[in-house]
Amino acid sequence: MKKYTTVILSAVIVILAALLVGILIFLKNQPIQQRATEPLVKISAFEPDSSIWGLNFPNQYDSLLKTKLNKEDTEFGGSSKFSWLERDPRQLLLFGGYAFSKEYNDDRGHEWSLEDVRNSKRVTDKTPGSCYSCKSSNNPGIWNKIGLEEFSKMPFAELGKQIDQPIGCANCHEAGTMRLIVTNPAVIAGFEAQGIDWTKFTRQEMRTVVCANCHDEYYMAGENKVLTMPWKNGTKIENILAYYEENQFKDWEYPEAGTPMLKAQHPDFETFTADSTHFKAGVACADCHMPYVRDGSAKYSMHDIHSPLLNAELACGACHTDVGYVVTRVSEIQEQVSTTKISTEDAIIDAITAIKSAAANSSSDPVLLDKARLLHRKAQFMWDFVSAENSMGFHNPEYTLKILADSTNYARQAQMLASQAANDPSLLVIGVYDSMK
Amino acid sequence: MKKYTTVILSAVIVILAALLVGILIFLKNQPIQQRATEPLVKISAFEPDSSIWGLNFPNQYDSLLKTKLNKEDTEFGGSSKFSWLERDPRQLLLFGGYAFSKEYNDDRGHEWSLEDVRNSKRVTDKTPGSCYSCKSSNNPGIWNKIGLEEFSKMPFAELGKQIDQPIGCANCHEAGTMRLIVTNPAVIAGFEAQGIDWTKFTRQEMRTVVCANCHDEYYMAGENKVLTMPWKNGTKIENILAYYEENQFKDWEYPEAGTPMLKAQHPDFETFTADSTHFKAGVACADCHMPYVRDGSAKYSMHDIHSPLLNAELACGACHTDVGYVVTRVSEIQEQVSTTKISTEDAIIDAITAIKSAAANSSSDPVLLDKARLLHRKAQFMWDFVSAENSMGFHNPEYTLKILADSTNYARQAQMLASQAANDPSLLVIGVYDSMK
Repeated sequence: MKKYTTVILSAVIVILAALLVGILIFLKNQPIQQRATEPLVKISAFEPDSSIWGLNFPNQYDSLLKTKLNKEDTEFGGSSKFSWLERDPRQLLLFGGYAFSKEYNDDRGHEWSLEDVRNSKRVTDKTPGSCYSCKSSNNPGIWNKIGLEEFSKMPFAELGKQIDQPIGCANCHEAGTMRLIVTNPAVIAGFEAQGIDWTKFTRQEMRTVVCANCHDEYYMAGENKVLTMPWKNGTKIENILAYYEENQFKDWEYPEAGTPMLKAQHPDFETFTADSTHFKAGVACADCHMPYVRDGSAKYSMHDIHSPLLNAELACGACHTDVGYVVTRVSEIQEQVSTTKISTEDAIIDAITAIKSAAANSSSDPVLLDKARLLHRKAQFMWDFVSAENSMGFHNPEYTLKILADSTNYARQAQMLASQAANDPSLLVIGVYDSMK
Repeated sequence: MKKYTTVILSAVIVILAALLVGILIFLKNQPIQQRATEPLVKISAFEPDSSIWGLNFPNQYDSLLKTKLNKEDTEFGGSSKFSWLERDPRQLLLFGGYAFSKEYNDDRGHEWSLEDVRNSKRVTDKTPGSCYSCKSSNNPGIWNKIGLEEFSKMPFAELGKQIDQPIGCANCHEAGTMRLIVTNPAVIAGFEAQGIDWTKFTRQEMRTVVCANCHDEYYMAGENKVLTMPWKNGTKIENILAYYEENQFKDWEYPEAGTPMLKAQHPDFETFTADSTHFKAGVACADCHMPYVRDGSAKYSMHDIHSPLLNAELACGACHTDVGYVVTRVSEIQEQVSTTKISTEDAIIDAITAIKSAAANSSSDPVLLDKARLLHRKAQFMWDFVSAENSMGFHNPEYTLKILADSTNYARQAQMLASQAANDPSLLVIGVYDSMK
């Protein structure tokens, strides 16, 4: 009997130990609780105040607030408001006669959006409400109430009375469901013009599309300065250029040269989605700029949006095992783009100089001169499409370098046509900028 | 007792089953036998006949023989001897006055090397032995016997009497040890000129370096036409250009333009190792072009070297899980490079046309005209560095696109300087090639 007792006891121990291990493994494999089943507070539609959303989503909200903290700049960009005109003085000439030659500071984090637009030297008495379009979480509610056209044409100062929040939750999320949504009516219209219904995008696609609520090329159309995406022909650079030609749009006229100029904005969305390596691999903006992080047992998407280079282990490391290699590659690619961009700038400045001289010469052939201006306009827009984009080419390196190659070609052709127009080979100066220093 | 018997028998069964499983697992995890411990035949130093090496390494040898089979061309290259002059007739003008405008066929597989060089229309009575440098596995033995200089200067027809093998084992392997070696004395000298001892390369590095036995930029130096790598300053394109300037070397003079021209060869090694994504990630040429394959239980490096696009599952799939995506990306990148390359060609043709006119004008400023020629020389070499390279840019996309951007810029500058030299703006024609059709 004693023997049997030992066997039975041993069996009981084994069973208990197995149960214990089983339960521990089961617990270890449970999905992390991401939020309470019932939200703590009910969020009203278009709620502009992110701190209220923050009651239900404290981790996301806390990380959003961190976009106000000063961070180290990266090699080719950053979150401080450094001056592009100081960093690259060629841009003073390239934006001659336009507000961007007065002040052109780099964007800071989302939490700074309202303060920075209000303090911009580019804002004047004539600035339309349009310029608030990407600066506040009050916008979705206001757009819903008064519509895009009223919003756009209202004077900046007047519209400003209804606005007290920087970019926040309501710019990308639907209250209640928290699903990702396009809130900017100009972006909705931009998709519709291409026959695209944004509500059909998948969740992963929306993790790129919500960034397009702001990070894309736009212009202010017509008398009412209505925010408009130039996407009717598509979002590739040649589609956008064709759109502007069809609409004969210009942002300003270059002084003395007489060129009808275009200012590119920040075509991050258009550049990234133009078949870039990462986009084609199914990566979304949020994968790199809003990686998943942990706080204790909570896992959430980081809302302190900034360059992935500042947290490459998290941002790149989610897919790449060799983060050191990746960061070096980014730097090398950006260096190649940056150097090529400077060559393009030199070519455009040479073209501007030649066109100015030809325009000042009353015997210049007006048809050839206009052709030169058209090439100047095209070259500068292509360059600016790269320059105003927020990745120094990394969002799509090959696309970017090809655009710069074409832009340089057009700039040189503009200079040649100006020289032909004036019948004056002395306009063919190479390296005007360097000779000015 | 019967009970005990059952227990004992059961235990024996369990032990036997466990042993069986253990042995099977052990066997499954044994490294594959790659070759017999003792080679079947002893291979003499510099043995030119690959079929003898093939007795010890039948799989490798059989796959080498497959380089003689006709294969489907890829979108931008291939293993057939299609004519570049027919595929891209701009090259007829770009190589004006040079043998490459007579015949410029794409390379076929290694097994064709001897037959194809002997049938080339570029070979004449004056062709030096140098032109056999990359065409035969007889070379390592001949170089060892008579040295590089004798080899290079001997008339092609005379040297040819000692040569009866296409490219083969002896070009990259040391007999006996089978280790990978640099056999081309010009390549050894090219490394030494940079202070590099090739014997210090790791095995994985050698899986790239042996390709440099042939796949690099070279020229024939001096009276004796000695095969030489222009690497003294380094292997980046700016180093190579600087080298040619220091040595005042030219391959030919462009008729009527008077430009001292350079022909780029196939700078695959220089392009790939210029910090390309794959190179920086530690990938060797052989990883993509000679992937490991299996024949029964034998695993060996495939010696049927060709475009990895023809066996992408093997070649790309060794690292990339998403081969379909990878192949599409390659195609898109090559398309971008190809289009940009054509724009560069147009710019160079415009420059050539302008320089010819300026050269024909006796009142042209000779100093400006020479500056134009120098830019023409530079632009064409940079374009050719991309064009003669065997990957339509894929070996290093950003590097390639940056080179094309710079080349176009220099070509346009050359045209401008020619116009200035002749004081004639009518030389500033854009799109000469298209207007010729």
